[in-house]
Amino acid sequence: MNRSNISMAVIRRLPKYHRCLSDMIDKGIERISSKELSETIGFSASQIRQDFNNFGKFGQQGYGYNVKDLLEAISGIIGLQHTYHLIVLGAGNLGEALVNFGFDKLGFQVDALFDNDPEKIGRIIHGVEVIDINILETYMSKNPVDIAVITTPGKVAQKIADRVAISGARSIWNFAPVDLIVPDDVVVEDVHLVDNLMTLTYLLNE
Amino acid sequence: MNRSNISMAVIRRLPKYHRCLSDMIDKGIERISSKELSETIGFSASQIRQDFNNFGKFGQQGYGYNVKDLLEAISGIIGLQHTYHLIVLGAGNLGEALVNFGFDKLGFQVDALFDNDPEKIGRIIHGVEVIDINILETYMSKNPVDIAVITTPGKVAQKIADRVAISGARSIWNFAPVDLIVPDDVVVEDVHLVDNLMTLTYLLNE
Repeated sequence: MNRSNISMAVIRRLPKYHRCLSDMIDKGIERISSKELSETIGFSASQIRQDFNNFGKFGQQGYGYNVKDLLEAISGIIGLQHTYHLIVLGAGNLGEALVNFGFDKLGFQVDALFDNDPEKIGRIIHGVEVIDINILETYMSKNPVDIAVITTPGKVAQKIADRVAISGARSIWNFAPVDLIVPDDVVVEDVHLVDNLMTLTYLLNE
Repeated sequence: MNRSNISMAVIRRLPKYHRCLSDMIDKGIERISSKELSETIGFSASQIRQDFNNFGKFGQQGYGYNVKDLLEAISGIIGLQHTYHLIVLGAGNLGEALVNFGFDKLGFQVDALFDNDPEKIGRIIHGVEVIDINILETYMSKNPVDIAVITTPGKVAQKIADRVAISGARSIWNFAPVDLIVPDDVVVEDVHLVDNLMTLTYLLNE
């Protein structure tokens, strides 16, 4: 398969398949028909077939899907067979919350927090050390970083993004309320919390 | 204007206009051409015109936009002229981070946190009291709640959503990793952090 031909809409549905199938495993469900899967996940059966067709052949006509096999296949497609090294830039409340969120169970390991506050540098937060942001480049030259998580205030976020990109991070998970400009080979996923709140507000007044 | 005819794509662009125009105000910019606005925000000039046309007439052909007036108009469209009352369900790290995020500057006021942990109940976190989740209904019968923020573990999120919906909340900002089922008149905005991470992971491996 050529992963770069897959549309973002399909890619953004993969985590939902993963979540739904994980829940079924937890409930002890071993086999599921495409109709049942469709009802549980809320996508049409034809949508599900089309999504899976992008990645090869799953299940057997009339026999449905083996839940464990399908979850493993989806996990493989997403890339969850590896461990990913994360650093969190900004050791504020949000950075702290992300360190302690439990992503490690899925293979996302936060190796370090960075901050410029002398009061915070050197502290251990949920088992993760807060390192001086001044030595970010030194850290990144010695340690693998797959995902740089930016939780800094908006006004310094672009500068931090520049620094992690130059130092070799290939993906940024951005919580700062700015639209980052990054090199073409760096992937950015934004979580714009204020935008979410404003969307809710608009819809509330509809 | 009929707000319910506006597409979600347009609605989701409004916060970005708000952010971009607020930055311009901070920089002391008073007037901007549609071309400059387009370059700053990254939408085409025709896209911007179309977006604004949904809501009436802004700016004047050849004269561009008065930034302050435009920001006020966008704020009004989003509904930022009011104060919104939020409660946060789940006083964990994420709940705590949200209380302290600074949304109050935009008129989003967190009035209470709720939890079932006796160790947490009664505490004041960033000026907000943690209340026993058992008295959620009593609280909601006496206090206005515009937005219920769910930061509980996934397995209890649906039950909490049911309770806040029955008690009159018209919108839910959901951070739990589940797809909530709510009455038609309740708006849900999801922030699925694990889904974001998986999307990044997929793209990293592309």
